[in-house]
Amino acid sequence: MTKDEVAREMRELQDFICAELEKLDGAATFVEDKWERAEGGGGRTRIIESDRLIEKGGVNYSEVSGDVTPMMLGNTEIDGDSFYATGVSIVLHPNNPHVPIIHMNVRYFEMDNGTYWFGGGIDLTPHYIVPAQATHFHHSLKAICDAFNASFYLKFKTWADDYFYIPHRNETRGIGGIFFDHLSANQAISKENLLDFCMELGRSFPEIYASQAQIGRDKPFTEEESNWMNLRRGRYVEFNLVNDRGTKFGLVSGGRTESILMSLPKNASWAYNNQPEQGSKASETQKLLVKNIDWIKGG
Amino acid sequence: MTKDEVAREMRELQDFICAELEKLDGAATFVEDKWERAEGGGGRTRIIESDRLIEKGGVNYSEVSGDVTPMMLGNTEIDGDSFYATGVSIVLHPNNPHVPIIHMNVRYFEMDNGTYWFGGGIDLTPHYIVPAQATHFHHSLKAICDAFNASFYLKFKTWADDYFYIPHRNETRGIGGIFFDHLSANQAISKENLLDFCMELGRSFPEIYASQAQIGRDKPFTEEESNWMNLRRGRYVEFNLVNDRGTKFGLVSGGRTESILMSLPKNASWAYNNQPEQGSKASETQKLLVKNIDWIKGG
Repeated sequence: MTKDEVAREMRELQDFICAELEKLDGAATFVEDKWERAEGGGGRTRIIESDRLIEKGGVNYSEVSGDVTPMMLGNTEIDGDSFYATGVSIVLHPNNPHVPIIHMNVRYFEMDNGTYWFGGGIDLTPHYIVPAQATHFHHSLKAICDAFNASFYLKFKTWADDYFYIPHRNETRGIGGIFFDHLSANQAISKENLLDFCMELGRSFPEIYASQAQIGRDKPFTEEESNWMNLRRGRYVEFNLVNDRGTKFGLVSGGRTESILMSLPKNASWAYNNQPEQGSKASETQKLLVKNIDWIKGG
Repeated sequence: MTKDEVAREMRELQDFICAELEKLDGAATFVEDKWERAEGGGGRTRIIESDRLIEKGGVNYSEVSGDVTPMMLGNTEIDGDSFYATGVSIVLHPNNPHVPIIHMNVRYFEMDNGTYWFGGGIDLTPHYIVPAQATHFHHSLKAICDAFNASFYLKFKTWADDYFYIPHRNETRGIGGIFFDHLSANQAISKENLLDFCMELGRSFPEIYASQAQIGRDKPFTEEESNWMNLRRGRYVEFNLVNDRGTKFGLVSGGRTESILMSLPKNASWAYNNQPEQGSKASETQKLLVKNIDWIKGG
């Protein structure tokens, strides 16, 4: 399997997801920006802004290559002189606080020395955590994982708990999901099956998001709930700008800033030392922003 | 001069600045949070939230000490086993887009091996740059610098241009100011004079801010101007979370998150690939977000 074949599958995945999300939103369509990178490669950034379901969202495809710079080496575990990377990444911020923020990413790296790996992940950031919905989310991910390897779900779920974590807040970004990186073929799984795993995750994305969005999208919400959503978005911004290795890699490797930072919400807010009222829905959510919850068992 | 004497001066500076800013705001007062740090030291975080001049601002005093950790070493040029640091740091976000965001910080470091240094800076982030006001700001800073050392202003102004810069946006945070670090006594200046320099900068702060705030604070503003302010605040958030070494040092050294992130605005926003209209005030401002403008000569 060549890198061009992987890239073609990534582009088709982007097309599929955008078409499905437009149907789901029901009002807005994606606007595409094609861009090229001086050092090699380029991408198709697609942005949706809707007053129905998705207030601000992006589904990015990119295929970039170039020399490995010292700044990259400081930020990743890359070994080699030049790299190739292709992938699809998604972040959707809804209008309604009863709909979660969702993120997904699948990617393929190849170095000039012939090594390659797949990476990716999906995680959910509900503004208000509803345990049954979190369980449903994790069941969907476990089913996808189990079809490829019996050890994937637990390993990648734990990895997500560690990755989508904000140390300076001592809280997780949301209810986690799965995260994986540096996956290459071994006795248990072939390169083709790794690509299939990434594609299966990607093709499942619209349905996974639909099942999370449909419950809350038409629910009325108060100003207090909207304010809480903006505070949670503030934390999302903190994670992405302070902790997310993907964002940092993108920014230091000369990635296209507007495509990388499409992950940021339209609005976010900060309040000094905000402590939600004891017993409030916000306070219940905050208690669940911890690692190692077994959502399959029901939290 | 002992570190306790420096710390006392820093506390008095905080008291003075808070009292002056309350007079200037004319409506709100600071709320104080005293905090202690398990590893040693603590601080007095003071927050103001007003519907008059300052929508959200903080004037922090802290005095912390502890072991130098490997994470700190990766982020700074610290040499030694344990450190002591005391200082005052300020960020003020106004309600009115015609008033700039302002930041100031003065700090003192001492290592167990006896080395010490002063650092600090002040910079201005107008939502709309008014060249005459930028020139006035830089004249004030030059006067303070010139009273201590003829080479300070140019050196520290250039340092600020480099420090308050957002590489991934290829723009400065605002119109700069002065930045200095690792200042210790030499033939040209004594330790006492370095402390005096920091204190003179700090004591000048309320007047410097007042002269910047008075012109715009009662100016009517449109929704468009308010939206532009929020987009500029988004960039301020990006600088603080991605680029600011002080913020990063604080977060990785186990600093108090709420005190460090008091620098973030109440609200910020992001829009994909926002390009202000040619010839608009926003577009004129964006053109001035570059290094090496000689504001003393008038920009």
